[in-house]
Amino acid sequence: MARKPNFARSPQAVFTRIQHSVAFYETDAMGIVHHSNYVRFLEHARVQFLAEHDRPYTEYVAEGFHVPVTRVAVSYKRPCRFADVVEVRCWLAWARTASLGFAYDLTVQGQLVAFAETDHAITDLSGRPVRIPEHMRVRMDGWLGLDSQEG
Amino acid sequence: MARKPNFARSPQAVFTRIQHSVAFYETDAMGIVHHSNYVRFLEHARVQFLAEHDRPYTEYVAEGFHVPVTRVAVSYKRPCRFADVVEVRCWLAWARTASLGFAYDLTVQGQLVAFAETDHAITDLSGRPVRIPEHMRVRMDGWLGLDSQEG
Amino acid sequence: MARKPNFARSPQAVFTRIQHSVAFYETDAMGIVHHSNYVRFLEHARVQFLAEHDRPYTEYVAEGFHVPVTRVAVSYKRPCRFADVVEVRCWLAWARTASLGFAYDLTVQGQLVAFAETDHAITDLSGRPVRIPEHMRVRMDGWLGLDSQEG
Amino acid sequence: MARKPNFARSPQAVFTRIQHSVAFYETDAMGIVHHSNYVRFLEHARVQFLAEHDRPYTEYVAEGFHVPVTRVAVSYKRPCRFADVVEVRCWLAWARTASLGFAYDLTVQGQLVAFAETDHAITDLSGRPVRIPEHMRVRMDGWLGLDSQEG
Repeated sequence: MARKPNFARSPQAVFTRIQHSVAFYETDAMGIVHHSNYVRFLEHARVQFLAEHDRPYTEYVAEGFHVPVTRVAVSYKRPCRFADVVEVRCWLAWARTASLGFAYDLTVQGQLVAFAETDHAITDLSGRPVRIPEHMRVRMDGWLGLDSQEG
Repeated sequence: MARKPNFARSPQAVFTRIQHSVAFYETDAMGIVHHSNYVRFLEHARVQFLAEHDRPYTEYVAEGFHVPVTRVAVSYKRPCRFADVVEVRCWLAWARTASLGFAYDLTVQGQLVAFAETDHAITDLSGRPVRIPEHMRVRMDGWLGLDSQEG
Repeated sequence: MARKPNFARSPQAVFTRIQHSVAFYETDAMGIVHHSNYVRFLEHARVQFLAEHDRPYTEYVAEGFHVPVTRVAVSYKRPCRFADVVEVRCWLAWARTASLGFAYDLTVQGQLVAFAETDHAITDLSGRPVRIPEHMRVRMDGWLGLDSQEG
Repeated sequence: MARKPNFARSPQAVFTRIQHSVAFYETDAMGIVHHSNYVRFLEHARVQFLAEHDRPYTEYVAEGFHVPVTRVAVSYKRPCRFADVVEVRCWLAWARTASLGFAYDLTVQGQLVAFAETDHAITDLSGRPVRIPEHMRVRMDGWLGLDSQEG
């Protein structure tokens, strides 16, 4: 299991891509998307990553796991506006025994509007840290684009 | 216990008044508060009403009750803007065995910006309707501004 | 142009259907979608209605029009949860010279979770009421499912 | 004008403290405040910092300035719950010719729940970067807790 950040996504790394059409209620009086909403767009992509490459987040919860956010960082490059279609790409950046990190880039019509990172713990439903569940652990080298023999 | 709506608040009726300073993230690209946020302002007032006149909502939950919203209606009269101080007044409009309704008016510097109603069920924590809890029931005539002998 | 509400949608009336997958950030500590978010789901459907049957809302703004909400009412029938796919159907319920109303039903897997109405004014960008723009007016009988000869 | 970050707040540095009572609509289905909302709490504190130590944000806009967020980072230490009173302290961490950074800590009953940083550009209303306005610039050494002779 990889232990180093992988913000420069390996060409072999798995990623998920979602599209979010900006709602009017996500804009603010500057006429642009309020910066807090980008944190929500990341969640759309992360939920989709797990659904596509592992299992739906609802099954994590049913199994007794949560994947809470322990840190978020977003760098804003260009504003987005109402009705813009934001494409969010999400990939696993690093993983340890009981934590992991995703990286993201957000583009509108091919232009970078933001990039971001989120760090996560794996916890039980009461919030106590636990080891990464087996079904996730065995897939992680593939997510990171590593040869599984080296894992 | 009163059984008829009381949108025209009786002079004796209890009410709560809260002030909410409009946040930038509550505005939209029209430069005004997005209409969905008013529904949230009502919650501030309703939570305060219960805390002031009955008990904190957290104690309802601890006792096994929820007071979910079954209907909301808001009429918008004037727009609000960033940094406006919205005063929300909230009072009990009607009550029945397992449901009740609040009414609200929202003003900025004395000018009406909206009025609203919310209807509620009383449920257990699994969402099943139950009778209004005793501590709430015994106070309701007072909240409605009725003489308790007539209740 | 029809002058009466049409909440019982005519079989000929035009409608739009959107699907919204409930985000985790739209849930609350009762484990269900917070009631304020339904007001936002309506906006998704309404924006799509205009884009499909008339023109994108951004073009309204470019032409100098806004379609602000003057009233919203939502009746909640069943709770929705994280990852539920909410289908929102939206149709024109009534229209007058400078105002109009949409009606909505919201279902999850075919079960009604809520229905709603929104009333709107047509204004210029400064918020002053104006007549319904011509391109919208000429389409309205069709939206309402009326024979245009009777318009 | 200071050019280095000051996350370890100088004892002389100016700070602002606001209290935010957690709303029910800010919680999520994990029973805690959704992480995206902390970004909004920071805005409350920052707006108050400017109002207290410089001028209301609305006056910045009236003067033709915006102070958009170019980066946000939040580290989450403990969850917050409905009705918790979150105290947010905010201080200027660094400043350059056309950008500046704030730092924050968030506590509930004296316990750290999160800390955060936001970076900002100063722009005109069209979003073009401009120099920090004079009234802000002359106050910054004081905000940073520096002797102005050293500026």
